[in-house]
Amino acid sequence: MAELLKGKEVADAMCERLAGEAASLKEKGVTPTLCTFRVGEREDDIAYEKAAVTRAAKCGVEIQKVVLPADVTQEAFDAEWKRVNEDARIHGILLFAPLPVQLDMERARRTMKPEKDVDGITLSSLAGVFTNTKTGFAPCTAEAVMELLHHYGIEISGKKAAVIGRSLVIGRPVGMLLMHENATVVNCHTRTKNVPEITRQADILICAAGQMHSVTEEFTNPEQVVIDVGIHWDEEAGKLTGDADYARVEPHVRAVTPVPGGVGSVTSSVLMKHVIEAAARGV
Amino acid sequence: MAELLKGKEVADAMCERLAGEAASLKEKGVTPTLCTFRVGEREDDIAYEKAAVTRAAKCGVEIQKVVLPADVTQEAFDAEWKRVNEDARIHGILLFAPLPVQLDMERARRTMKPEKDVDGITLSSLAGVFTNTKTGFAPCTAEAVMELLHHYGIEISGKKAAVIGRSLVIGRPVGMLLMHENATVVNCHTRTKNVPEITRQADILICAAGQMHSVTEEFTNPEQVVIDVGIHWDEEAGKLTGDADYARVEPHVRAVTPVPGGVGSVTSSVLMKHVIEAAARGV
Repeated sequence: MAELLKGKEVADAMCERLAGEAASLKEKGVTPTLCTFRVGEREDDIAYEKAAVTRAAKCGVEIQKVVLPADVTQEAFDAEWKRVNEDARIHGILLFAPLPVQLDMERARRTMKPEKDVDGITLSSLAGVFTNTKTGFAPCTAEAVMELLHHYGIEISGKKAAVIGRSLVIGRPVGMLLMHENATVVNCHTRTKNVPEITRQADILICAAGQMHSVTEEFTNPEQVVIDVGIHWDEEAGKLTGDADYARVEPHVRAVTPVPGGVGSVTSSVLMKHVIEAAARGV
Repeated sequence: MAELLKGKEVADAMCERLAGEAASLKEKGVTPTLCTFRVGEREDDIAYEKAAVTRAAKCGVEIQKVVLPADVTQEAFDAEWKRVNEDARIHGILLFAPLPVQLDMERARRTMKPEKDVDGITLSSLAGVFTNTKTGFAPCTAEAVMELLHHYGIEISGKKAAVIGRSLVIGRPVGMLLMHENATVVNCHTRTKNVPEITRQADILICAAGQMHSVTEEFTNPEQVVIDVGIHWDEEAGKLTGDADYARVEPHVRAVTPVPGGVGSVTSSVLMKHVIEAAARGV
């Protein structure tokens, strides 16, 4: 039986620490505040927003919700975007993506104040991830993977890590974060030949391809720790599931994250950590 | 016998094309101009400066040399740095590093105009490398590796590449550039265990550890293309040499770059390419 790396335990431990930090900021007159910025009524966005609201309450972070209609004009979007960027009481902004087609995501990214970029979408944050310097914040999901590994005492330095996926949201940044902690990292992607042959050699496997059940036992080895970043609705089974085919992977590895209840449960706590850090920088 | 991947051929081909581009910019009244910015009389800096001057003449790029004494004050450095940053006739700046200890390299990096950063040292350029967007320029040596691979028609997409080294000057950026062209890339470093076992699996091996003769035949396989970025003075042999022990590597691989005369010969042409691109952006 593989060890189950549950996210809740990690999130709870983080949240306890963060609530303390938020409390001492409040004593100094600063209320760490996150603006959730949503356009339209996409189900994923609403689910993540809800998770953020719940988590924020536990961590002592205040939420300001912005919700614009799905057919909002660029002009109206820009006005609201400018307002939250300039409001000094807002320390971090979470912009739900993708935006509806009439809106310019690149412009939003470019005009976001780097110091409010708590989910690592600006060039400034991504440069920080690449160069291992503190300019902005890493994408929350990538950092959630690291928090999870740290919490469960999984050794990273000197280990081999394979990441399936190379997106800017997770694959590339998590590869960099692992390398900064001295893992030897390979990112597999759609053009990689014979992925299982590569991932089988890894001590740590990060599944971030966004393909349901694309990772099976042949990708693994018995000493491997598998971190599943994927989240999909399995129509047939009627439940959420991951990139890994859990039933086939779990018996063959040392440890694995469940989906749901793994990385996803940690992400919103990382978001709160960033908001509190952003608020503390201004003190 | 391995195929010898000489840099001169690549540089000459690039230079011919670049001279044409520079000529048509001049017709529009723009003379592509590079400022070489040197502090002190370090031998490496002078050698690279000399190479840049020679290459610039061939490519139709004008050079403005700045040379400050090794004991220059921060104040005097800043004044000159500001001047070249603000001079609209200068399209690119090559700052020789490291700077003497009394000067703040981070400040120079931070205050450099990103659009003049033709050697990829600013956060803006490095963010571009990481995200695969055109914000600034890649470090010249990393891009020289790519030019060399392209010139000799070496397939990158779908191939495995191993990079020994993870510096911001070469290891990390060249890994990213290879991945953007669909190679599957692993960066080995000082904390990687059993490096030869990893590099032996690679179709393309980039030697960028900065350790003379640290790469031997056991790192290779007979189908491998070896690109040697290292450059060292071999005291015993009385000549320049690379990270690879050439005599031991060459008989066992498909192709290899010589040192000197490999990547190093291409770097200054990439620099001119960037200066001309920077000049063209303003037209």
